[in-house]
Amino acid sequence: MTKSNKKGVLIVISGPSGAGKGTICKELLDKRDDLYLSVSATTRAPRKEEIHGVNYYFLTKEEFECKVSENDFLEWAEVYGNYYGTPKSNVDKMLNTGKNVILEIDIQGALKIKENSEDGVFIFILPPSMEELKKRITNRQSETQESLMRRFSSAYQEINYISKYNYGIINDTVENAVQKIENIICAERCRVDRIKDDILESKEGFIHE
Amino acid sequence: MTKSNKKGVLIVISGPSGAGKGTICKELLDKRDDLYLSVSATTRAPRKEEIHGVNYYFLTKEEFECKVSENDFLEWAEVYGNYYGTPKSNVDKMLNTGKNVILEIDIQGALKIKENSEDGVFIFILPPSMEELKKRITNRQSETQESLMRRFSSAYQEINYISKYNYGIINDTVENAVQKIENIICAERCRVDRIKDDILESKEGFIHE
Repeated sequence: MTKSNKKGVLIVISGPSGAGKGTICKELLDKRDDLYLSVSATTRAPRKEEIHGVNYYFLTKEEFECKVSENDFLEWAEVYGNYYGTPKSNVDKMLNTGKNVILEIDIQGALKIKENSEDGVFIFILPPSMEELKKRITNRQSETQESLMRRFSSAYQEINYISKYNYGIINDTVENAVQKIENIICAERCRVDRIKDDILESKEGFIHE
Repeated sequence: MTKSNKKGVLIVISGPSGAGKGTICKELLDKRDDLYLSVSATTRAPRKEEIHGVNYYFLTKEEFECKVSENDFLEWAEVYGNYYGTPKSNVDKMLNTGKNVILEIDIQGALKIKENSEDGVFIFILPPSMEELKKRITNRQSETQESLMRRFSSAYQEINYISKYNYGIINDTVENAVQKIENIICAERCRVDRIKDDILESKEGFIHE
């Protein structure tokens, strides 16, 4: 029996704004050195201290459009005149060398990736409660009451998309949520769909020895 | 968001003879007090020290056949004139009170259960290598060379059934294998199929508060 699965797992971490996916991903990447963050590409100008290849791949509009025409994005979108996208070839390269790739993305992006990824693992991060979600959205925005309610209502609606995902994790504490994602990664690497070719191949190898 | 999934998970642990599933199950049950072993029913006579309801439910042939006619077995089989089966109502009762149920069973039994269980988790235990499998089968049997080869050949063929399972675990060490099963149970309890009704229900509850 082979002991290492050759291909890494693409782990898409997503959920409504305010659920805490950013903090979870940061903690997960700090804790585990076998996980790699997928770096997005964008045409917006770099902010102070942002580094090309670390925070984003900063591309010109022409470069980005060229990649779009070459079908080199798992998903992309235009937001306020700038392009943002997930470069496919980078992700594939990491997966093919056995690395597990973490991709933090909003729900619309995740659903687009799902159309293009057969064996990605889609994890939906949920707030501990709707009250807590409201509080988080309120705390981090300096907006009008009306726009806060709009943001909350949108996050509330977005929770319905959980049914498109493989796993749902309630972010009661970051530590618990991170541990559950680690367990999911371990479980996914044991899935028969991912390992059976290796197993059956190594079995055949034995009989011919 | 609800924090506890109401229903337990049925975990079917199976694999070829010699892969070590018995040792793994014992260790798993010793380690975790939220796991319950499904006790089989049989019509064979109890051996010394075997206790009704612990090692087996010892039934008369009539009692067993009555349960068969009531469709109260997840699977059953006749072996050398005795019946063996997995009582369905016991398993369902445990699952419905949120307990996770471990069921250790051979491959034929597991495949029958799969036909009757929509949401069971089927885990295939693999030996560390085919050499090791051969050694284990040889060590524990006092049989002729020919019958050993037949047993090995049968175990070898049985590995093909892995494709019917959800997960495959290489039993390199019992500790590793047990840890992986624990991770799988955690991951399965986060599966959207298992939790989404609770999530969406608790969300609706909030909006009407």
